[in-house]
Amino acid sequence: MAAVAPTLARRIARPGVLPLCSRPQAWGRAARQSPGLPRAPSLLLAQRRAFSNNKILVELDEGSGIATMKLKSPPVNSLSLDFLTEFCISLEKLENNRGCRGVIFTSAIPKVFSSGLDITEMCRKSTEHYAEFWRAVQEMWLRVYGSNMVTVAAINGSSPAGGCLLALSCDYRIMAENPKFSIGLNEAQLGIVAPFWFKDTFVNVVGHRVAERSLQLGCLHSAPEALRIGLVDELVPEEKLQDKAAAVIAQWLALPDHARQLTKSMMRKSVLDRLVAHREEDIQNFISFITKESIQKSLHMYMEMLKKKKG
Amino acid sequence: MAAVAPTLARRIARPGVLPLCSRPQAWGRAARQSPGLPRAPSLLLAQRRAFSNNKILVELDEGSGIATMKLKSPPVNSLSLDFLTEFCISLEKLENNRGCRGVIFTSAIPKVFSSGLDITEMCRKSTEHYAEFWRAVQEMWLRVYGSNMVTVAAINGSSPAGGCLLALSCDYRIMAENPKFSIGLNEAQLGIVAPFWFKDTFVNVVGHRVAERSLQLGCLHSAPEALRIGLVDELVPEEKLQDKAAAVIAQWLALPDHARQLTKSMMRKSVLDRLVAHREEDIQNFISFITKESIQKSLHMYMEMLKKKKG
Amino acid sequence: MAAVAPTLARRIARPGVLPLCSRPQAWGRAARQSPGLPRAPSLLLAQRRAFSNNKILVELDEGSGIATMKLKSPPVNSLSLDFLTEFCISLEKLENNRGCRGVIFTSAIPKVFSSGLDITEMCRKSTEHYAEFWRAVQEMWLRVYGSNMVTVAAINGSSPAGGCLLALSCDYRIMAENPKFSIGLNEAQLGIVAPFWFKDTFVNVVGHRVAERSLQLGCLHSAPEALRIGLVDELVPEEKLQDKAAAVIAQWLALPDHARQLTKSMMRKSVLDRLVAHREEDIQNFISFITKESIQKSLHMYMEMLKKKKG
Repeated sequence: MAAVAPTLARRIARPGVLPLCSRPQAWGRAARQSPGLPRAPSLLLAQRRAFSNNKILVELDEGSGIATMKLKSPPVNSLSLDFLTEFCISLEKLENNRGCRGVIFTSAIPKVFSSGLDITEMCRKSTEHYAEFWRAVQEMWLRVYGSNMVTVAAINGSSPAGGCLLALSCDYRIMAENPKFSIGLNEAQLGIVAPFWFKDTFVNVVGHRVAERSLQLGCLHSAPEALRIGLVDELVPEEKLQDKAAAVIAQWLALPDHARQLTKSMMRKSVLDRLVAHREEDIQNFISFITKESIQKSLHMYMEMLKKKKG
Repeated sequence: MAAVAPTLARRIARPGVLPLCSRPQAWGRAARQSPGLPRAPSLLLAQRRAFSNNKILVELDEGSGIATMKLKSPPVNSLSLDFLTEFCISLEKLENNRGCRGVIFTSAIPKVFSSGLDITEMCRKSTEHYAEFWRAVQEMWLRVYGSNMVTVAAINGSSPAGGCLLALSCDYRIMAENPKFSIGLNEAQLGIVAPFWFKDTFVNVVGHRVAERSLQLGCLHSAPEALRIGLVDELVPEEKLQDKAAAVIAQWLALPDHARQLTKSMMRKSVLDRLVAHREEDIQNFISFITKESIQKSLHMYMEMLKKKKG
Repeated sequence: MAAVAPTLARRIARPGVLPLCSRPQAWGRAARQSPGLPRAPSLLLAQRRAFSNNKILVELDEGSGIATMKLKSPPVNSLSLDFLTEFCISLEKLENNRGCRGVIFTSAIPKVFSSGLDITEMCRKSTEHYAEFWRAVQEMWLRVYGSNMVTVAAINGSSPAGGCLLALSCDYRIMAENPKFSIGLNEAQLGIVAPFWFKDTFVNVVGHRVAERSLQLGCLHSAPEALRIGLVDELVPEEKLQDKAAAVIAQWLALPDHARQLTKSMMRKSVLDRLVAHREEDIQNFISFITKESIQKSLHMYMEMLKKKKG
């Protein structure tokens, strides 16, 4: 159960090393349906357990073909480079596993689904680090938004910024009906700007007008409000969240895989392609933005504030 | 009242033979408003009655300028090649008739508006047949979605797949408030995928999020649900459907034709142009998809199931 | 307090004379945040009061940084060339004033917010005049839709056509809850067609389906209906309109300017760019449309009808 050496895990996020960095898996997945083609190397399958007890707990119900990825990276499931790398490897293994057709994302941490991008990855680091980190963020989105599996977010806690993006990238969003939990792309509140593909994903879910207002105000919407604006599809009592998520996936899986996957691709392809076409440019934009002294200062102040809150 | 020979009717659907296959009539219609330009050849007008008692009953109220196209192709108004050819010729004649400014599409068959594309046209046929059939489906959509007339669907029965597309292509949709009637693009249920222009038309009516979910699940929405998601504009008791449709058209016709038509074209042009630009490619896509052995098998099983249901 | 000579005011609207006609200010505004760059020439600031008592009353609350532009061009705040020129100059001065971060548009005329484009500018005038007028209409939209300031429409009266466009171009719309007040892009009612950028702006607010139907019918929506379809964001009693607008702006201004402005630009850039890229073509389209004898006749009849109504 030894974890893969961090250096290896990080190398995976570099361009050209493993297919993790190529086009999102979804568009190539048809290959696994051709019985004559080679399967994913068993090395990846062997790695599975290695990761399952690290930052993400992966459970696969072989009867239903539904996996659950439980985010358990205390204190708040922030999306660090290590977390993202493990996330993408875990997801790829499920994507390559014929026995798995649907996946539920949920949190093992009380009250928080995911707090979004890990700010420490964006403060006082090298340009190379920023590039590697941002590529991993892109990778997470490309893999989830383009997944051939049915993806459901079981949002059992608050879910700002990158946490909201993860939920938005799924096929369906169910949130615990707790008015204390909130969700939204609140980047503007921190003085930063959601990248265009966060915005595209948001617009595809809630429409242009709601997205424009919510993004400019950096809104965090309470669960009932999130339902009202269509940011989540339904609210259920927290104890029924997992059952409901499994029931929803079962409903989606009743459709022929091939037709469902091609339909999903048709709906999402233009937005996915836009990032694929501008990926390096997007990384450069991120670097030049995040290395601005004013942005560094503002992120630093935000982190200090968080530390004081804890203390 | 003899029907046009099928060979002639079919020739009409071939490229370059008659204007039926050219750009949708709407963009050329301004011509009829220039008194100096030639009108449509009277041959087409002479054909009118020949078709009116075949698969579609066309009635024109000369006082109001409102025509009704009653689909009456038992048992379920499926969109066969013959049906589509007659549909397009009938619609073109109305489009070229200055006395006609609006058209209501409705069904003369109880409980069904249209069951969508005729599956027998897609099973065990020649490549040439598939091409001819698909061109006719495209033609129906190009003509209705791009029509200069005010178009209203009076949906007096269930309306899956291609039947739903016909309704979506109108300016306004009124459905009988019978919860047993359903409507939707349920292609995914049959293991097939709605083409991109079905999707574009759907997104323009219900928005991206509703379309994404509904298409992936192949949803058939009951009348009340169709109203709730904006797939239809209103529900009325079935016996009031025709009167309501006529009243709606009269309201739309109160606007100056020229301004209304240019506005409609502005809203729909990009989506129409997209198919016009990729029409042959779309036909090839259809052929290569439909000739897959797995698809043929799945359609064949579906047809056998339908036969047993009847038997 | 002498008004700038009309000839000067008009020259401002010509291409290449002043930055008024260049790309919308918003994209260049970042300049003012770089302390090393030159500020707008003080000539413009000196002009300020000259305009403030003409057709638009500009008040700036220096404490809050919120300006109010009160339209007061009797009888109905129609958007004449003079009005538009003054509007753009006033807005540019606010945009260049660091002390001003938000602006409320409202009317000083009872019962009407703005009646839209001044029809007398479109009747029996020279081609040069039509070009100058249309460029000024474009300019108003480019400046408001692309403004870096927080913009709120406090709609205290009816607001057809161009008046509706002004409101649609803001970040937020609050309307007096008077069911007698109406708002909409009713161009089709006059036999004319809203240009593509009116349409794009409308679609971004209410979505494709609502826009398609509303534009084709030339709908004027009552205040409650406007709220229901999302054309306005909220209704308040007329006497509370100004306070509410100021409170909303304060809420938006609580966000860091830089992040809010970049986010707004990201949401609106593609639509703004489309007009910038086709600006001269759009002017030519307007001229060739408006000089049609049928359109002139129809506008003339409309004006006669308005005169009789008054008489």
